[in-house]
Amino acid sequence: MAKQDRAIRTRQSILVAAARVFEERGYQAATISEILAAAGVTKGALYFHFQSKEDLAEGVLAEQDQQLAVPSRACKVQELADVVLLHAYRLQTDPMVRAGVRLALDQRAQGLDRSGPFLRWREIGTDLLMRAQVQGELLPHVDPAETAGIVVGSFAGIQAMSQALTDYQDLTLRVSELLRHLLPSITMSSVLTALDLTPQRGEKVCTEIEQERLELAAQEERDAARQEPATVS
Amino acid sequence: MAKQDRAIRTRQSILVAAARVFEERGYQAATISEILAAAGVTKGALYFHFQSKEDLAEGVLAEQDQQLAVPSRACKVQELADVVLLHAYRLQTDPMVRAGVRLALDQRAQGLDRSGPFLRWREIGTDLLMRAQVQGELLPHVDPAETAGIVVGSFAGIQAMSQALTDYQDLTLRVSELLRHLLPSITMSSVLTALDLTPQRGEKVCTEIEQERLELAAQEERDAARQEPATVS
Repeated sequence: MAKQDRAIRTRQSILVAAARVFEERGYQAATISEILAAAGVTKGALYFHFQSKEDLAEGVLAEQDQQLAVPSRACKVQELADVVLLHAYRLQTDPMVRAGVRLALDQRAQGLDRSGPFLRWREIGTDLLMRAQVQGELLPHVDPAETAGIVVGSFAGIQAMSQALTDYQDLTLRVSELLRHLLPSITMSSVLTALDLTPQRGEKVCTEIEQERLELAAQEERDAARQEPATVS
Repeated sequence: MAKQDRAIRTRQSILVAAARVFEERGYQAATISEILAAAGVTKGALYFHFQSKEDLAEGVLAEQDQQLAVPSRACKVQELADVVLLHAYRLQTDPMVRAGVRLALDQRAQGLDRSGPFLRWREIGTDLLMRAQVQGELLPHVDPAETAGIVVGSFAGIQAMSQALTDYQDLTLRVSELLRHLLPSITMSSVLTALDLTPQRGEKVCTEIEQERLELAAQEERDAARQEPATVS
């Protein structure tokens, strides 16, 4: 394994440990020693990647942003729905995503900039809705930034309610219901009829992304195998 | 002051103190001693009203439910909007309401039943939407319980986002936007045009309730004054 790969893996395993400790103990109560113990790395390794507890939390928060990418769609409202439904599915299944959302909503995480994820999510939503607008998918009155804020804010609450009532068991169903309540107010009806907003959509998109990743990796391996003899000779 | 009035006031001042301590310290970190100090009552008085910290938190949570009552409206969708917009206005202005919402969303408040407020709010919403349905205000496909869950959940998130980004400065505006996104998907258009969903609506309803309360108190005083001579003679 290259040195860089190893550093990336160490950083990742520290973040996974931090996510777990933040989720169990809450941001304020969590300590660096607990995260060290959970990660099983040396103090030096941890401080090489992260300067402070705040830094670790920002890392967990940033990690989930990377999870928001979905395959591009011709219909931008569908792409927005895919981002939202995939995120719901990952919240059900990925502890790192769960920890990030909890940190963003932790009202006692003092010193931590919790506005970051809200702002970044709203930016992603605004961007997609602006492209939907250019393509004529939206009703004429829509303000993309306003609607993006509503989508992000209401998603945050629906997930909190689902967590409190069913420990995320009904999350994909509730988020599907949310989209069916929000999108008819902003989307042309001809576009609405073509959307897939079912609770299963998030898992489908997730499988699609995994498939693409595997194909890309296989392709890279084939390319590397083809080049190797050339390098040796 | 009658003995009963005094007991009600003591209970109320303990709840206000508990709300403040829970909001500052979080449910898990807060202690009964801190609440005692903040309330300025004796240990005996506190334990007369509340058995435990959990009991105090339940009291704070229950308190805000009572705040959700609004004057009855001919249009039940407007009445639902009034409940939501009034609650947004109170969140901006009333520390007790704020503490209740934070407790309900406190993901580390272990041992505390946080599902209570979500369920009660959803019940209130379901009831109003069922009455709206009977009156023909809703589109035919609407499931009142489902829509009520979406309204409650998305409100919870919009308030968390408003708190994180603007310390509730934009809350009434955002909640007004939320309703303008949700209601067109469930309400007959003839009803929609008659709704007041402006950000100022919550304050108006609050003033209306205060006015009614003052008139009722004045009426009671007049009734008492009229009866007094009869009691003396």
